[in-house]
This record gives sequence, C-alpha cells and structure tokens, in this order.
Amino acid sequence: MPVGTQGAVKAVPHEMLEALDAEIILGNTYHLYLRPGHEAIRSMGGLHRFMSWPRALLTDSGGFQVYSLSQLRKVSDDGVQFRSHLDGSSHFFTPEHSIDVQIALGADVIMAFDECTEYPASRGRAEESLRLTMAWAERSLAHFRAHRDEVPWRRQGGSQVPISEPGTARISPDNPSDDHRTQSLFAIVQGGMYRDLRRQCTERLVEMAFDGYAIGGLSVGEPRELTLEVISEVLPLLPRDKPRYVMGVGYPDEIEQYARMGVDMMDCVLPTRAARHALLFTSEGRVNIKNKQYAEDQNPPDPACSCPVCRRYSRAYLRHLMQAGEPLAATLNSIHNLAFYLGIMQRVRNSLEADSQQLTADR
Amino acid sequence: MPVGTQGAVKAVPHEMLEALDAEIILGNTYHLYLRPGHEAIRSMGGLHRFMSWPRALLTDSGGFQVYSLSQLRKVSDDGVQFRSHLDGSSHFFTPEHSIDVQIALGADVIMAFDECTEYPASRGRAEESLRLTMAWAERSLAHFRAHRDEVPWRRQGGSQVPISEPGTARISPDNPSDDHRTQSLFAIVQGGMYRDLRRQCTERLVEMAFDGYAIGGLSVGEPRELTLEVISEVLPLLPRDKPRYVMGVGYPDEIEQYARMGVDMMDCVLPTRAARHALLFTSEGRVNIKNKQYAEDQNPPDPACSCPVCRRYSRAYLRHLMQAGEPLAATLNSIHNLAFYLGIMQRVRNSLEADSQQLTADR
Repeated sequence: MPVGTQGAVKAVPHEMLEALDAEIILGNTYHLYLRPGHEAIRSMGGLHRFMSWPRALLTDSGGFQVYSLSQLRKVSDDGVQFRSHLDGSSHFFTPEHSIDVQIALGADVIMAFDECTEYPASRGRAEESLRLTMAWAERSLAHFRAHRDEVPWRRQGGSQVPISEPGTARISPDNPSDDHRTQSLFAIVQGGMYRDLRRQCTERLVEMAFDGYAIGGLSVGEPRELTLEVISEVLPLLPRDKPRYVMGVGYPDEIEQYARMGVDMMDCVLPTRAARHALLFTSEGRVNIKNKQYAEDQNPPDPACSCPVCRRYSRAYLRHLMQAGEPLAATLNSIHNLAFYLGIMQRVRNSLEADSQQLTADR
Repeated sequence: MPVGTQGAVKAVPHEMLEALDAEIILGNTYHLYLRPGHEAIRSMGGLHRFMSWPRALLTDSGGFQVYSLSQLRKVSDDGVQFRSHLDGSSHFFTPEHSIDVQIALGADVIMAFDECTEYPASRGRAEESLRLTMAWAERSLAHFRAHRDEVPWRRQGGSQVPISEPGTARISPDNPSDDHRTQSLFAIVQGGMYRDLRRQCTERLVEMAFDGYAIGGLSVGEPRELTLEVISEVLPLLPRDKPRYVMGVGYPDEIEQYARMGVDMMDCVLPTRAARHALLFTSEGRVNIKNKQYAEDQNPPDPACSCPVCRRYSRAYLRHLMQAGEPLAATLNSIHNLAFYLGIMQRVRNSLEADSQQLTADR
C-alpha cells in the first residue's frame, strides 16, 4: 500500500497511482484528524470523496503517530493525552475516539487503537503495553460494532451523487448484502520482541474475531532478524481466511520475503520517501540518482522496468531534475519506486497462483 | 507557451502537458547552459531527447536572464560578461555563443541574442541598448546561417533511434525539404518605451528576414498601458506571414487581448508560478485557494472548466493540499492554470477561425 499520509501520496497524482494499478492506499488518522479534521471530512462525505480516490483506503489508528510524532504524550488506561506536532494543541485519543474518527473518515479498512511498544523495551514494559493494546482492541471492537452503520458513505442521499464506490473493496465476510456493507476492522498484534507475549496477544485477538489482523510494533529500530522472528511467530497463529497485514515494512527484499511467507498486506513510506531523496530501487540494486556518474547516462532508471518513468526518461534527466531542484524529480522518482514495489507484489501473486495451479494439477 | 525553465515545466509531468494539448514549451538557455550544460545536452541528442519532449520547443537567447538573474553584468559591444547566480562563476555570452548554445540545445525555435532594456530607461540609454540589439541580431543571424546544419537531431545516426520528431513543428518557410529541416531563428524587437525607436528597430529587423519576430523588453515593470502601446506600435509593422511573439506576458485578460490583436505566441511563468502560491485563475476571477472560505467547498476550482483537475477535485481538497504543504498542490494548481491559459488561446483560435469563415461566406 502506497502511503498517502495527509490524503495524498506525496508528489504523485492519483491518475499515476491508478495507472500503476495501486488498489489501496493508506491514510494516517493522526494527520487527517489534526488537518483538515475528521468532522470536515465526514461532512464532505468521507475520505474517498474528499480526496477523490474511488479505490480502497485503509486508515491506521493514530496510535503509531501519537507514539512517534506528538509531544508530551501521557498514556493512561483510558487513552493517550498528547500535543499536536503542528501547533502544540492538546488532544486526547481513546479507543472509542480513534474508531469514531476512523468511521468519520470512512476508509474501507480501519485499525483498532493500539499502543506501539518502543524498541528496546523491558519485559515489564512490553507486558504493560500489551495489556493496554488488548484492552483497547476490545473497546475498539465494541465501539465499532455499535457505530459501524455511521460511516458517511452509508448515509449519502439528497443531491449528492457518490463519486466513488467505497466499501466495494470490503474484506470482511460479515454483512454480505450491499445494503449493509460497511468498514472492516483489523486488530493489531503487539508484544514487543517477546515471542510468548506476541503469541498470547495473537491468540486473544483471534478469539475476538476481527475482520483481519495486523502485526504492529515493527520497524521501530529493531534489527531485521527480530522483525522476521516476530512475523514467523505470529503469522501461523492468524486465521488463513482473513487478511494478514505487517505494518510499516520495508525494503524491497523484505516485502518479497514476507509476502512469500503469507503476509497479504504491507505499507511503507520508504518507496516515496527514498524517492524524494534521490534513492531509486531497481532490479540492479539501489541507485542514488544524484550521483555524478549518471550525468550523461541515457539508460532508463531501471532497464528491466516498464513503468511510465522508465519507458520515457533517462537517468541523466532524472539526475538533472534532482540537481536543479525541480519538483518533478520527486514525482518521477516516486512513480518509479512505487511501480517497483507494486511489481514485486504482482510477481509474488503470479508465482503463488502458479504454485496453487501446480498443486491442483498434481492432486 | 508553458515555461519549462530548466527542461521541465515546474511540478507538471509531461503526460499532463500532452493531455492539455500544450503544443510547445519554452526552455531557458541561460539556465540550461549553466545546468546541465549545453554540451551535455548536445551529446545526448538535444533538449527534445534529453527531456523526452517530442513536441515543439523554443529557447530564449539567455539575454533576459543575464539581465534579470546574473550578477556583475558587464556589457560591451562584443557581448555580456556575467557571473552565474548559482555559483558565482564567470561567463561571457556573445551573439555567436548564444546561437551556438541554442543550436546545441536544438529547440525548434531559437532567439537572436538581445539586450533587454530596463524600465524606466532614458532615451540615450534606450538608443544605446537598441544599437547593441540590432548589431547582435545581425551577428546572430549570420552565425545561425553558417551553423544551422549542426543541430544535434540532424546528425543522429548509428544505433540511436530518435525518440521524437523535432523540427516537424518548424515554422520557417525556408528549407521545405525534410532533409534540410533545421531550427527557426526569431529576432527580438527592443527600443524601450520609445515608439520611434521600436519602429526603427522593427523595420531594420524585418529587412534582415528572420523566420519570426518577438517583441521583447516588456513585462519589465512598465504600466500595462505602455505594454499595449508598444505592442500596438510594433505589430502592424511585422510581416503577417511570419509568427509574431510577445515575450513574457501576461495575465489571462492580457493574453486574450494581445491574441485578438494578432499576436501568435506568448510565454509566461505566471500560470505555474501563481499556482505554486495558491493563486488560481478561473472563469469567476482569481481564487486564492488557501482561503479559509474554501475549507469545505466541494465545488470544482472553476465550475466552468473541464480540465482534469476541475473534473476530479474540489476546492476543499486543493486547499487542504496547500495547507498541508503537499507537493501535489503545486501540480494540481499548475495543471488547472495551464488549462485555463491554453483554453483562452483555444477560444481565440476558434473565434478567429469563425470570423474568417464568415468573411469568406460574405465575399
């Protein structure tokens, strides 16, 4: 999932995302809550309509940004008090409030409010954080069940014609009738780097019967072996008929590895953020397109790539755009990196499909 | 002509310019000479191929940027010594050098090297400046005639396949055979705000038989009445069968007015520069899209516009993108403003065509 933090994938027009077959993008609840505000977005019909994105959307719970961006964070059993990174204003997020905000935004997939455990964390700290996450998951689920009919695109009427078909990418097996389609709620597994805590959290959340499951608390500075260990521990415990989502990863080889292990969804700012800093991911490895060696290199950024950027532009031109500070540099670099990431996922899907056809044939 | 100063229209992907039917864009010789350098662009086959823009290109002479951007400018009969605004390095531009650089860049239309007269200027200063411009026009023309076969896309061979068809938008009546197609050279009329000097300059340049004529030295701070006065003075003296180009204008109502007077070409950074500062040109007047009043305005930026931005996005979303500092704001605002400008020109063309059909019918 390309990340569209503030309701836009940075520097990439929607048309390009559609041309790249991006099926779903992620918006950050924390950012959209602060600006332009979830009530404004609700009153305009939800995030799909506000940003004019008819395909699927996922919003996170706000928990991770409260943890990573906000100031003077104060956690209690009830929720988290924090100050905005924009203007220092004071806010209080509870599980119920996070769900309310996410219902107002109206993404297809929303996330239970969690507390992201930092790395490293002592066992005592991880246990305490886990206790909160599990209690908050239960409260998120209860609140969602009571209010899931309030999603703005279920209440469209009057003269407004829906510009999009949110909910059609619905993953939840509940409410199969179109009349009752609503959002899907995923839980987030925490537990730090402690395998038994991760197992305990997973089993408890699976009992609660969410629509899908995410593994959170990764990409917080831990070594990659630990990331892999946690995913390996949790993944087999998750239901095979529900989406399994690893949050906030990763490098191209990581996402390929995790997808082959059975992970269905991932999100990461890396392809777009790296692009803005001149780093391209290619079939030949990482390319810092600002390097002098590309000044007159008329090859495409990635000779093996058929994305709109590699079909049209040379390394020399992309280098020039970066050197000259042209905003188009961020756009073109981001399009290529997203194409590269989405291409990896497409290849994994094709290969899984071929495997399963082979299995059927062998039977 | 949208302005692509450094080989890119700021924040606008080429695909969007093509979708807007932009037929020609302008590159700045001064900027491209300094970065990435005309020799690099020549060795890569010229600007069309370097930036992957198969449609028409025009480069200016560098004279205006030397006048407006560079430091420690020192003008002599031979040319202009100046220091780069990028790194303070010292450079010397003569008419011959400007033409050499423009031949290396290989735009379809190139400009004679001129000295832009500042505003206000005394009659003595304007006369001196005019003397230089006329002498430099003659030297530009002589040098171009001696070297016009050296344009990089005439020398393509070996394994390189042209990605574009530069020269097909050739405006010059010379060299009608495809084998001899080359660039078109336009002269620039100067003379400050002195009507007799403008007239004298125009008559002299027309005698030299350039491929087209530009009126320069406008948009240098003079009141709009004076701009109009100069255009009104010069335009009737220019040959009707060659393109007439007013450089560096203007606001939407200005470009419509000048086009109706018979101006064939104009360029201006205004639509894209204003866009980056949240100013949209619309059928309802100027809109500062950052204004609070648009926070929940779900109307398109311009209800009368059918550009890709107005068809898809609301004022509220564009305002949010500006407020949030999203790079997509510059892209979407620029696309709308360019569509608005190009739409004006299209309407003028349609109306002139209807007038001329009426004239034929009346005959």
